[in-house]
Amino acid sequence: MNGADQLCDTLLANGVDVCFANPGTSEMHFVAALDRKPQMRCVLGLFEGVVTGAADGYARITGKPAATLLHLGPGLANGLANLHNARRARSPIVNVVGEHATYHQQYDAPLTSDIESLARPMSHWVHRIAAPQAVGKDTARAVGEALRKPGQVATLILPADCAWGELPKDTRPVQARLLAAPAPDVQHIEHVARAMLRAIQAEEQVVLFLGPQALEPEALQIAGRIAQATGARLMTPTAFRRMQRGRGAVAVERLPYVVDAGLQALAEVQQLVLLGAPQPVAFFAYPGKPSTLAPAGCAIHTACSPEEDVLLALQALATALGVDRKAPLAVQAAGHIHAPTSGPLTASAVNLVALQALPEGAIVVDESITSGRDIAAHNMQAVPHDWLVITGGAIGQGIPTAVGAAIGAPSRQVVAFQADGSAMYTCQGLWTQAREKLKCLTIIYANRSYAILHGEMKAVGTQTPGENAQRMLTLDQPAIRWTQLAESMGVPAVRCETVEEFRKALQAGLAENGPFLIEAVI
Amino acid sequence: MNGADQLCDTLLANGVDVCFANPGTSEMHFVAALDRKPQMRCVLGLFEGVVTGAADGYARITGKPAATLLHLGPGLANGLANLHNARRARSPIVNVVGEHATYHQQYDAPLTSDIESLARPMSHWVHRIAAPQAVGKDTARAVGEALRKPGQVATLILPADCAWGELPKDTRPVQARLLAAPAPDVQHIEHVARAMLRAIQAEEQVVLFLGPQALEPEALQIAGRIAQATGARLMTPTAFRRMQRGRGAVAVERLPYVVDAGLQALAEVQQLVLLGAPQPVAFFAYPGKPSTLAPAGCAIHTACSPEEDVLLALQALATALGVDRKAPLAVQAAGHIHAPTSGPLTASAVNLVALQALPEGAIVVDESITSGRDIAAHNMQAVPHDWLVITGGAIGQGIPTAVGAAIGAPSRQVVAFQADGSAMYTCQGLWTQAREKLKCLTIIYANRSYAILHGEMKAVGTQTPGENAQRMLTLDQPAIRWTQLAESMGVPAVRCETVEEFRKALQAGLAENGPFLIEAVI
Repeated sequence: MNGADQLCDTLLANGVDVCFANPGTSEMHFVAALDRKPQMRCVLGLFEGVVTGAADGYARITGKPAATLLHLGPGLANGLANLHNARRARSPIVNVVGEHATYHQQYDAPLTSDIESLARPMSHWVHRIAAPQAVGKDTARAVGEALRKPGQVATLILPADCAWGELPKDTRPVQARLLAAPAPDVQHIEHVARAMLRAIQAEEQVVLFLGPQALEPEALQIAGRIAQATGARLMTPTAFRRMQRGRGAVAVERLPYVVDAGLQALAEVQQLVLLGAPQPVAFFAYPGKPSTLAPAGCAIHTACSPEEDVLLALQALATALGVDRKAPLAVQAAGHIHAPTSGPLTASAVNLVALQALPEGAIVVDESITSGRDIAAHNMQAVPHDWLVITGGAIGQGIPTAVGAAIGAPSRQVVAFQADGSAMYTCQGLWTQAREKLKCLTIIYANRSYAILHGEMKAVGTQTPGENAQRMLTLDQPAIRWTQLAESMGVPAVRCETVEEFRKALQAGLAENGPFLIEAVI
Repeated sequence: MNGADQLCDTLLANGVDVCFANPGTSEMHFVAALDRKPQMRCVLGLFEGVVTGAADGYARITGKPAATLLHLGPGLANGLANLHNARRARSPIVNVVGEHATYHQQYDAPLTSDIESLARPMSHWVHRIAAPQAVGKDTARAVGEALRKPGQVATLILPADCAWGELPKDTRPVQARLLAAPAPDVQHIEHVARAMLRAIQAEEQVVLFLGPQALEPEALQIAGRIAQATGARLMTPTAFRRMQRGRGAVAVERLPYVVDAGLQALAEVQQLVLLGAPQPVAFFAYPGKPSTLAPAGCAIHTACSPEEDVLLALQALATALGVDRKAPLAVQAAGHIHAPTSGPLTASAVNLVALQALPEGAIVVDESITSGRDIAAHNMQAVPHDWLVITGGAIGQGIPTAVGAAIGAPSRQVVAFQADGSAMYTCQGLWTQAREKLKCLTIIYANRSYAILHGEMKAVGTQTPGENAQRMLTLDQPAIRWTQLAESMGVPAVRCETVEEFRKALQAGLAENGPFLIEAVI
C-alpha cells in the first residue's frame, strides 16, 4: 500500500473510474497501482491533447470527472489546449500530473519545469501533494473541487516519492465532500423579474442568456416555460458545454460566432438576463467594432453567476414571474430535413445529409468551424441528440472529445462534424478510437484550408492573399489523404466527392461497430 | 505602415528571416504584414509543436534564431513541450505570440488566458508589447535576448491592436544590441587549473564536463588539446544541443541516460570541471538511488557558468595548464562500421547500417530513445556529421527538429533516428517536410511500444505488467502503419523487416530529393 494505491482507491471510492493517460517514468508507481485496480478503466492517448480532450468529452456526457494522467510539465503542456476548452466548458476533470520526487526537484533535471505556472491558466484549482500521507485527503479534495458547480478543472501534482511512499496497509480511501453551489439572491431575482414584467408590458425584447447549468434538462424545462409564458428569447453563448437538440428539445438560439452576425442577433434586445452565463462578447476584437455585443441601452441583469445554483435561480425567476411550472411545455415537434440526394458535395450538403441520417440519441461533436455554420439552423429538425461544441477556440478538440463521449456513453453513436485543419491537431485520437473500438463516426470537411482565416484576412482588408499569406492559410500542397491517415491508425475510411457517395459512406459508417471516417471533399 | 510591419522589418533587419508559423485570427495583421515582406520565409506547421521544434532545429544548425508565430495562449501551449526542449538546448528562438487587443482582454473572451504564466516556465525572457510605438524596440530586444549566450528562448506577446496600430511611414527598423557574455573569473580558472595539475600528478581521473558553448568548434578544439595534454576525459551531459561526430571530430563521451550506467561512467572521477554545464544529475529519481551522479569525494569545480563566455574560459584554462594551443590535435581517424548485410532487423542493425550509409555532412536528429542506445558507440566511425539529440525529455522533438535543421541547411541530408511512440506526438511535421520538399529521411523504429517504460516498470518492481499497465505501455492493437501515415501527408515511405530490405530502403530514401520515411519493424 503506497501513495499511488491510495490515489487510485480514493478516485474509485468517489466514482472516478476512468483514467485517460499518457504516463512516463515519474508516473510508473501510479501505473503499477492502476495495474492492481482492474475496476479503473485506463485509456491510452498517443498525445496528451487526446487525453485531456477525452476527459472533457467524458465529463460533458456523464456529468462526472474522469482522471487524466500526465507526465510532468511537458506532458501537461501538451494537454493544455484541450484543458482550456474544458475549463471554458466548465467540465469537471481531475488531472494527475506526475512530478519529480520532492528531493530531486532542486537538481533541475532536464524534465523539470514550473508545473503550477503551466497549470494555473487552464485550471480552476491547482494543488501539489506534499507527502504520501496527504494523498487521500488531497485526492478527495480534487474530486470535490472538480464537481463544484458548474464544474471545474482540478489539477493535482503528484511527486514521485509521494506515489511510491509506503502507507499503513489499512489506509482507507477518503470520501470527497461535495460542495453545494451558493444559493442565488432571491430578492435580486425578484427585482429582475419585475424589470422583465415591465419590459414585456412595454413590448420590449427580452433574452434569457443561458450558461452551462441552465442548459441541463431540468433547468432548461423551466427556462422554456418562462420563455413560453413571457415571450422571452432563450439564447446561449457561441461556446456551450452541451445542448439537447432535435425532437422534444426546448429551442435555444446559439449566438453566432461572426461578430457582425452576433451584433445583428442581439440588435433589438432591450433586457438581457444572464443565467449563469457571462455577458455576450466578441470572440476577437476588430478595428472599429465593439467588444461587447449587447446594443447600447440594453439593460443587462445578472440573475445569478455561473457558480451559483442556476436551477434555484430559474425556479425563483419562474415563481416571481408567476409562471405555471406544471403547464404543458411546447417542445420541438418532429421535423423534416430537406437534404439533397445527389449532386456535388458542399459543406451544407454534408450537414443536411448527416443531420438527416443521425440515429436517435446520437452525440454530435461539432468542431466544424466555418463548414458547420448552418448546423444550428437545421439540427432541431433532427432526431433527439446531444450537441457538443468547441468552447475555448483551441482547435483540435473534436476527435478527442468524441473519444471521451463514446467512453462515457458506449451505447450511443458519436458523430463528429470535423474541420480538417482542426482535426490535424489531435489526429492521434483516431488510434484510441480504433483501440477502444468506439462507435465514433468522423466526418472530415476536406476544404484543405484554414477557411476561417481566409474570412479573417478579408476582415483586415486583404482581398487577395499573397504568397506568404497563402502558404499560411491553405492546407493543400500536399492535400492530406484522410482515408490513408485514418487507416494508418486502424480506422476504416472512405473518401466522397458527391452526395451519392456521401450517403453511401454514412450508411457504412453508421453500420460499423467501431470507428469510421469519411473524408468529404468539399 | 503598422506595428506588424515594424515587427517584420525589425526581425529582418536583425537577420531573422525564417518564420515558423501557425497563425490565427488575432495574428491576421501580422500575416498581412508578412505578405508584404517576401524576404521572410514563412513555413507553416499543422500543429504548434512542429512550429517550435522546427525553430529549435533551425537554431541548432544555423546558430541564429527563427521567429515563431503562435495563436494566443492555447497556440503557445501546444508549442511548449518543444520550447522546453529548446530551452534545455539553449537554442535561440524569438516567439511571437498573438494576443487579444489590449482593450479586449478585460472581457475574458473564450480564447483569453494568462499567456505570461504559460510562457515563463519555457522561456528565458518574456515581454508584452504595450503599444505600436514599442514594437520596434521590443522586437530588437527580443532578438538580443535570444542571442544572449549560450542562447535563449525569448517570448514576445503581441496584442492585436499593437499589430494593427498605425506608425509613421518613415519608421525605421530597430537594430538589436548584442549582449556580450560576461567574462569568466580567470583567477578562479587558474585555481581550477592548479587543482587539475595536482590531480594529474596524483594520477587522479579528471573530467571536463562540456556545456553547449564548449561543444562549438573553436571551443571544442581547445578542450581537445587540454584533454590530449593532460589525459582528462571530455564528457557532455546526456542532453546536448549539437555535437560534431565522425572522422575529424574531437571525441567526447556522452553521459548515459540510464542512472546506473551514468553512475558507472563517473565512478572513478575525482575531479569534475564544469565548463558551461550543470553538474551531472539523474534524469529521474528512483527509490534508493542518488540524484547526483558524481561519486562521493569527487571535487566539482565550476570553471564557468553556462551564461559566461566559455570559449574565454577554455582559453584561460589552456593557458593556465600550459597547453600548447598550436600543437597538432589528434582527432578521429577514418573508421569502419561493421554493419550486418542480411538477417532480421534489430534496433542495433538499424543503427549500424544507417550510420554506415550516412552521407558526408549529414545532420542526424536523434530521438531514438531506447532503440538508439548504441549510436554513441559507433557514430565516431561514421563520416563527419552533426548529432542533435532530444534535450528536455519532452518527446515529439525529432520530426519537427528535422524540419528546422533542413530549412537551416538545405544542402545537407537530414537523417532522423526516430522512436515510434515519440514520432506520434508531432507526426504532423511530416506534412511540412513534404510541402517544403525537405531532404529529411526519417527512420521509425517500429517496436510498437513505449519501450523505455517497460524498463522503468521493471525498475519499480513490476516484472510482468498486467492488463492496465500493458495497455498504457504498448502501441500495438492496432499497430500504426507508418507507411500509410507518411503517405497520407505526402511523404513517400517503405516498410522493412529485414536488413536487406532496410539497406535498399535507405538507398532509395537518400536518393530522394525530398522527404522519405522508413518504417523499420524491429
